[in-house]
Amino acid sequence: MPLLGLLPRRAWAALLSQLLRPPCASCTGAVRCQSQGEESLQVAEAVLTSQLKAHQEKPNFIIKIPKGTRDLSPQHMVVREKILDLVISCFKRHGAKGMDTPAFELKETLTEKYGEDSGLMYDLKDQGGELLSLRYDLTVPFARYLAMNKVKKMKRYHVGKVWRRESPSIVQGRYREFCQCDFDIAGQFDPMIPDAECLKIMCEILSGLQLGDFLIKVNDRRIVDGMFAACGVPESKFRAICSSIDKLDKMAWKDVRHEMVAKKGLAPEVADRIGDYVQCHGGVSLVEQMFQDPRLSQNKQALEGLEDLKLLFEYLNLFGIAEKISFDLSLARGLDYYTGVIYEAVLLQTPTQAGEEPLNVGSVAAGGRYDGLVGMFDPKGHKVPCVGLSIGVERIFYIVEQRMKTKGEKVRTTETQVFVATPQKNFLQERLKLITELWDAGIKAEMLYKNNPKLLTQLHYCESTGIPLVVIIGEQELKEGIIKIRSVASREEVAIKRENLVAEIQKRLSES
Amino acid sequence: MPLLGLLPRRAWAALLSQLLRPPCASCTGAVRCQSQGEESLQVAEAVLTSQLKAHQEKPNFIIKIPKGTRDLSPQHMVVREKILDLVISCFKRHGAKGMDTPAFELKETLTEKYGEDSGLMYDLKDQGGELLSLRYDLTVPFARYLAMNKVKKMKRYHVGKVWRRESPSIVQGRYREFCQCDFDIAGQFDPMIPDAECLKIMCEILSGLQLGDFLIKVNDRRIVDGMFAACGVPESKFRAICSSIDKLDKMAWKDVRHEMVAKKGLAPEVADRIGDYVQCHGGVSLVEQMFQDPRLSQNKQALEGLEDLKLLFEYLNLFGIAEKISFDLSLARGLDYYTGVIYEAVLLQTPTQAGEEPLNVGSVAAGGRYDGLVGMFDPKGHKVPCVGLSIGVERIFYIVEQRMKTKGEKVRTTETQVFVATPQKNFLQERLKLITELWDAGIKAEMLYKNNPKLLTQLHYCESTGIPLVVIIGEQELKEGIIKIRSVASREEVAIKRENLVAEIQKRLSES
Repeated sequence: MPLLGLLPRRAWAALLSQLLRPPCASCTGAVRCQSQGEESLQVAEAVLTSQLKAHQEKPNFIIKIPKGTRDLSPQHMVVREKILDLVISCFKRHGAKGMDTPAFELKETLTEKYGEDSGLMYDLKDQGGELLSLRYDLTVPFARYLAMNKVKKMKRYHVGKVWRRESPSIVQGRYREFCQCDFDIAGQFDPMIPDAECLKIMCEILSGLQLGDFLIKVNDRRIVDGMFAACGVPESKFRAICSSIDKLDKMAWKDVRHEMVAKKGLAPEVADRIGDYVQCHGGVSLVEQMFQDPRLSQNKQALEGLEDLKLLFEYLNLFGIAEKISFDLSLARGLDYYTGVIYEAVLLQTPTQAGEEPLNVGSVAAGGRYDGLVGMFDPKGHKVPCVGLSIGVERIFYIVEQRMKTKGEKVRTTETQVFVATPQKNFLQERLKLITELWDAGIKAEMLYKNNPKLLTQLHYCESTGIPLVVIIGEQELKEGIIKIRSVASREEVAIKRENLVAEIQKRLSES
Repeated sequence: MPLLGLLPRRAWAALLSQLLRPPCASCTGAVRCQSQGEESLQVAEAVLTSQLKAHQEKPNFIIKIPKGTRDLSPQHMVVREKILDLVISCFKRHGAKGMDTPAFELKETLTEKYGEDSGLMYDLKDQGGELLSLRYDLTVPFARYLAMNKVKKMKRYHVGKVWRRESPSIVQGRYREFCQCDFDIAGQFDPMIPDAECLKIMCEILSGLQLGDFLIKVNDRRIVDGMFAACGVPESKFRAICSSIDKLDKMAWKDVRHEMVAKKGLAPEVADRIGDYVQCHGGVSLVEQMFQDPRLSQNKQALEGLEDLKLLFEYLNLFGIAEKISFDLSLARGLDYYTGVIYEAVLLQTPTQAGEEPLNVGSVAAGGRYDGLVGMFDPKGHKVPCVGLSIGVERIFYIVEQRMKTKGEKVRTTETQVFVATPQKNFLQERLKLITELWDAGIKAEMLYKNNPKLLTQLHYCESTGIPLVVIIGEQELKEGIIKIRSVASREEVAIKRENLVAEIQKRLSES
């Protein structure tokens, strides 16, 4: 008993729950089930009760939040709000509608959609109902929504949290809970027009955020598969080899080659043929060149992909963004559901300023065409072609926050415009009347929740929180029917008539 | 086997999981554990495999979303965005900072905070890590945040989803996943100033939303407890009787009385004494009256509460909202953590217009003071007094949506300002160039993703989606270096020089 008493509450609870719930699913627990009778249960319950009591009397737990998650402080929120505003206004500029889906889906909705990553899903406990999992991305719920509501055409954006049980590497800004910003166009349209618009949107957002120069790599799943076929990869190994190729942005070719040959059993000469291709990247001229490639030009799938890329580049030219796009045969994209064009935006040499650590941020936006996903949810398999993109906002938040840190930039976490102050005691009533006038006029205003605050404390509050204006009321002002307005930055004060207060404040705010 | 084959996949999975996981916790499963051997397991697995295969070949599941949840369509999102904008801008007007916490917390963070409702929490499955639960409200995570970061003072708002496994009654607009909008002031301040501001905020928001007339009921936990003590309720029954009183807005007094006497064992004469009090409601004069009450005036706690309410009404007068507030002795509030003033806003007689169903919406905002919650998380029990409010936005969304339905009001789900059209074939290139100009100037613009759409189809799209302006380009316009601008509402068309396009559009948009 004393030993149990020393255990931290959670460890103890875990131990107890193990005692109480032997793993009967495997049925090796039959003996344990029998040996553990009413008696041990009662003992356990008594211990639990005393433990809970002790906890209530003197809390001895460590407060923390779940592994891989974090709170977003007001500082974080301000940066996020600015970035999300820019992203969402771009989505709206392109005619997208907003949408949301539940945080969790039926588990079966999500299974068999994410390939090797399915194990990273958060499942909810079976509390006597449906089997549920937290959403893993926003694409599968969107496809489920389209199929369920028989929507054949929709341009939507969706900003929301998703959850993945990845090993969290917090230094890199990766968390188990994170925000996704997706834009997708669903519907049967003429080829490559929506696809080109997705790339245009990525360019607008990345330019707008001023993250520095960037490049968007483009490829097509049919070219990837055609290349595999042409090089002699057995069809059964397509997805496995695809996921190796996907690592080329983090691993050297020789390591990827080794993985393909040693671990995935690819013939060395096949790997070398692939090696020749994945080094190729360039503009539309590379597309033309690949049409002439002796191996690729024999593959129907690859030719279809190349045709589409050629058309895509034509539209990208008209959009004025062709120079930002690189046809890159090493781009494979991990997810199973892509069927056509795929793309991924990377920042080029993040400008490392004095004192700034070099950032390894990977891709900051990505997406592609997935024409088969909606059909997986339709009872009759009816397809709705889709193309879309996801902005890697968490990485962007991280980059922007790091830069602000380096530059020593501070953000205001409130938007308060006016502070109501007094130099005198017993002026709470007047302050409350004044601030009511301001609030009722829509002016953002604060005061201290003190009956008799010191003037210095009040002015210091304004300086430390960045409030630009102070209105000051005291005995003298009250008698004369005036109010003083003070600029926090210049420390200048002017007296105005009390009845002009709101108008005067509004004038000053509109000027600044 | 044929029988199993006919079961829908999910029902079958549930059956299987029942077979595989007998409820050993109660240890009545010992016999079942033994009788269920390797053999039945293998059979079950074989069936599962064949079942999964069948599913992959021909999907026969019903697509649906989890019980008690729903997708938010673009129509929903537009209404929400407007309402949340108003709520958040009010919070910001009062100097609040934004904040967010993870969707789930360690289970122990949430236990023992919600009284009888703890069973409604969504737990996550133990996938070999911490025991986690989805957050049940935003108040407990806020208190945890303050304690964890040793924050002694903070005015913050938080808008986010919370989850409760309640029996969903979808007709009433109640869901298992819903949005909360909280504003809280943490810190040691002079009495009732932050409390009064919370009521001011509730008034500003409810007035701003134009939901009709409303009333805010106010009481104090110390008055509730003092009343119980004065009436002769045993202290051990305080919380149970409190939760009965809390039902007075939905149940008649005689039913509540019956529950207290028959189910909770209260003496009938004690119940009747309570009955005299809970009928009392009024303004500050009722506060004065209660100071003279022979029973309440003997109770120290109750007197403290009355003193505070008196001061509160003084501040509410200065804020100009006293006539919206009613001291109501029947207000008890369900949650355990309140320690001082409590309040709840209700809509007065929702105006039932012709054809509109009467809405039973209950409270649309509520809150109170909770001075002990943060201390529950602090290892040394250090307290941080808090007061706050929660806007019942889901109910407000529901009311606004119902009204719009009744009035036949339609909302635009996109913000597109300009549509790029052509009457001619083979004009995709020109349209793409034109729309690029508009996008790059920040104008919200759309076009059809067709090589050769019909003009009528294009104009019809504008009418049905509410796009106000169309720019039209054709052979003739291209030759003359002009563009036609068409107003969708008036159907008027004017020709302008191509180079003036953006300026002209911006002028028209700023005028409308």
